Amino acid sequence: MKKFTAVKDVENVEELILSALDAKRNPLQNNQLGAGKTIGLVFMNPSLRTRLSTEKAAQNLGLNVLVIDVSKDGWKLELEDGPVMDGDTQEHLKDAIKVLDMYCDLLAVRCFPGLENAKEDYAEPILNAFIQNFNGPVISLESATRHPLQSLADLITIKEKSIDKPKVVVSWAPHPKKLPQAVVNSFLEWVVETNAEVVLAHPKGYELSDEFVSGVVVNHNQDEALAGADFVYCKNWSSFSNYGETPEVQEDWTITDEKMKLTNNGQFMHCLPIRRNVVATDNVIDNSLVYQQAGNRVWAAQAVLKTLLQ
Amino acid sequence: MKKFTAVKDVENVEELILSALDAKRNPLQNNQLGAGKTIGLVFMNPSLRTRLSTEKAAQNLGLNVLVIDVSKDGWKLELEDGPVMDGDTQEHLKDAIKVLDMYCDLLAVRCFPGLENAKEDYAEPILNAFIQNFNGPVISLESATRHPLQSLADLITIKEKSIDKPKVVVSWAPHPKKLPQAVVNSFLEWVVETNAEVVLAHPKGYELSDEFVSGVVVNHNQDEALAGADFVYCKNWSSFSNYGETPEVQEDWTITDEKMKLTNNGQFMHCLPIRRNVVATDNVIDNSLVYQQAGNRVWAAQAVLKTLLQ
Amino acid sequence: MKKFTAVKDVENVEELILSALDAKRNPLQNNQLGAGKTIGLVFMNPSLRTRLSTEKAAQNLGLNVLVIDVSKDGWKLELEDGPVMDGDTQEHLKDAIKVLDMYCDLLAVRCFPGLENAKEDYAEPILNAFIQNFNGPVISLESATRHPLQSLADLITIKEKSIDKPKVVVSWAPHPKKLPQAVVNSFLEWVVETNAEVVLAHPKGYELSDEFVSGVVVNHNQDEALAGADFVYCKNWSSFSNYGETPEVQEDWTITDEKMKLTNNGQFMHCLPIRRNVVATDNVIDNSLVYQQAGNRVWAAQAVLKTLLQ
Repeated sequence: MKKFTAVKDVENVEELILSALDAKRNPLQNNQLGAGKTIGLVFMNPSLRTRLSTEKAAQNLGLNVLVIDVSKDGWKLELEDGPVMDGDTQEHLKDAIKVLDMYCDLLAVRCFPGLENAKEDYAEPILNAFIQNFNGPVISLESATRHPLQSLADLITIKEKSIDKPKVVVSWAPHPKKLPQAVVNSFLEWVVETNAEVVLAHPKGYELSDEFVSGVVVNHNQDEALAGADFVYCKNWSSFSNYGETPEVQEDWTITDEKMKLTNNGQFMHCLPIRRNVVATDNVIDNSLVYQQAGNRVWAAQAVLKTLLQ
Repeated sequence: MKKFTAVKDVENVEELILSALDAKRNPLQNNQLGAGKTIGLVFMNPSLRTRLSTEKAAQNLGLNVLVIDVSKDGWKLELEDGPVMDGDTQEHLKDAIKVLDMYCDLLAVRCFPGLENAKEDYAEPILNAFIQNFNGPVISLESATRHPLQSLADLITIKEKSIDKPKVVVSWAPHPKKLPQAVVNSFLEWVVETNAEVVLAHPKGYELSDEFVSGVVVNHNQDEALAGADFVYCKNWSSFSNYGETPEVQEDWTITDEKMKLTNNGQFMHCLPIRRNVVATDNVIDNSLVYQQAGNRVWAAQAVLKTLLQ
Repeated sequence: MKKFTAVKDVENVEELILSALDAKRNPLQNNQLGAGKTIGLVFMNPSLRTRLSTEKAAQNLGLNVLVIDVSKDGWKLELEDGPVMDGDTQEHLKDAIKVLDMYCDLLAVRCFPGLENAKEDYAEPILNAFIQNFNGPVISLESATRHPLQSLADLITIKEKSIDKPKVVVSWAPHPKKLPQAVVNSFLEWVVETNAEVVLAHPKGYELSDEFVSGVVVNHNQDEALAGADFVYCKNWSSFSNYGETPEVQEDWTITDEKMKLTNNGQFMHCLPIRRNVVATDNVIDNSLVYQQAGNRVWAAQAVLKTLLQ
């Protein structure tokens, strides 16, 4: 594995999950593996659990951690090629990355989409600039189109439940803000690599990009989709088909106790942070896997870092 | 000791002071005690010396440190129960804490009062949410009503002066802003656990909550109070009785060289930061214990962390 | 060496360069030298590569690092002597430093000039307050008048090219903002300590302070200056003679491929961040020493820290 930005970067998903569970059982077993090496965590957008879980995983492996918070530092980076930089931008992104290359052995980056232009966002210009200009392994901490460390943590959580051939329902949820498609895209491309039966439920108008739904059954009726589900993976996203739009939805897609009764004793999952009583009701969240998922972010990151360090 | 939020959490104050002085003599004697463990420092409000001294104490014990700056990160947390979170708040405080529980073995938190509603502030809803939702020990880095690590550092400083049965005068001081009562509340509940004679001096209208002044002599005449003092502990606070108000004060309560002459060669103390020539004059501050107090914050934190780790 | 704020603090520049190159070859050879010691990095102004490279150097030496970001923390410090602090400033700078003295064995500080008053800026009141009030060694991370870690990194980079008696041309460059003179001042006072031939090129009106140009040939014709150059060190600065002003320049001072052809196969240098196609064209930058210089910041810092720790 040379980088970790999408499921296709991983040679063996099952092995990576098992490696994460092994790290969870014995967190400090490789605490010298990263000795003398440095990972840079670059945040173009804010982060809390991603920073904390990755920082903790890195510490467990003995890595030095440098945090670079581009958004908070007010560091204005130029993304275009060949500009006359006599305006606002202080440094070209490629120069910034080539400097980080001097200080870091691994680089992890978070870069959200603008949600204005699908083609631009889905070309992942920022993530690709990191891959092109950094000599060591690049790790995505959520890019415009994917959130692979979250997806790996989600699969670890499902694995821990030991359900053979589970039915996993991925359901759109309401939200007051327009959000990227990265989490749902990513979860779909990871979960189809397992032996789960996957059903995607969303209102019409919230179609995802084709590349993420091949082989996935789509149902616009949430109740039908939920029937017999072992896991209900819930997430809001704005439309891909009407890019960045949030078309009005008539039915109530909030997950309630009543909806959960339609499932096969199903377990509710969400990547957090979650809007209580909007995405799901208090009681659903309080009896869910959400904290276990958040905890597994550490072991997902640790398994990925271990693989990249070896 | 399961938590450290008030003097009543401490089994033996004298022993804790001695443990801090022992750490000061030999800072690295327990530098493997925290190995492989993580402390989260959560700042709902800004901090500098509190973060630095706690971070240093944690490093001396071999703990990993994760800093979470809620105020700077613009992370808007919901505090109410059962809300429909379709507004500004992004995450419920209890969810945030339960996630931190996955990453941290100990959690330290700073949460200031709103100074609008005494009952609300003194119920310590934020600190209590941490205590209720975090499984490990919780440490207060100053809450609405108390600042126990500061008080412990203050008692260490007094101890170092080896004065038998000292007279400690706690005096209100002028300040351009309205401030919480936490530092003075806390110092009072700690110092009365020692064999010191304690006198509280403040202008009328600046009465503190009854729970912190039981057994404490109150004098509204600063000069009278200062007579024979071995230590003059100075601090501004806004009124508790007229909650959050700052009634006008006619007399000059600034501590000057003249005022210090009323004492028994008394030593001036303040928790810093201090407004020079408002709280006390330059010369009083330049010949005071304030830096020693600030330095002792490290050993206070280290003694507390050591006890909680054992 | 008791402090590192200017070339005159260094006993032997050549030895320091060799020590840096030694650290570059074997970064972890002194990884216990700083064990149990703490360096505070104080930023009165924003920083990225300076923080990262210094933090990495400190980690390589086993030092604990505390970062204090005064600008981001909104910590308003009083700089005047004897003020009645009933306004905006929360803490006196000297009190802040004396507190840091309790927590840190070494202190590094970045403090930019105001560019309004030459006499005030060049008196270095902030840097000097650190030197006066901190008991351990003080390191400049760029002050009003100098940027010594950058200059040391620059000399390391020149040394690595092994050119005997190189001609080094220091050239002013265009820039949309008004910038300090610190980088160019500092490079000049360091490079004249080597056996290089130094020529300073700048438009009329951009004269530097006399103390930095003694023994340096000044040429107002960039093309003439560039003839035969082995290194072209480029940097913008605002005028010292018309302090903080940026008089209009008629000629085009941007470094282009054509200009580089005037040199002796010269190598382009810049401290970064660089405004592409303003200071120099893309092609000049892409074939330059700028990343090597940035990388050498680590080894410059490591050599300085090692010397100060010994």
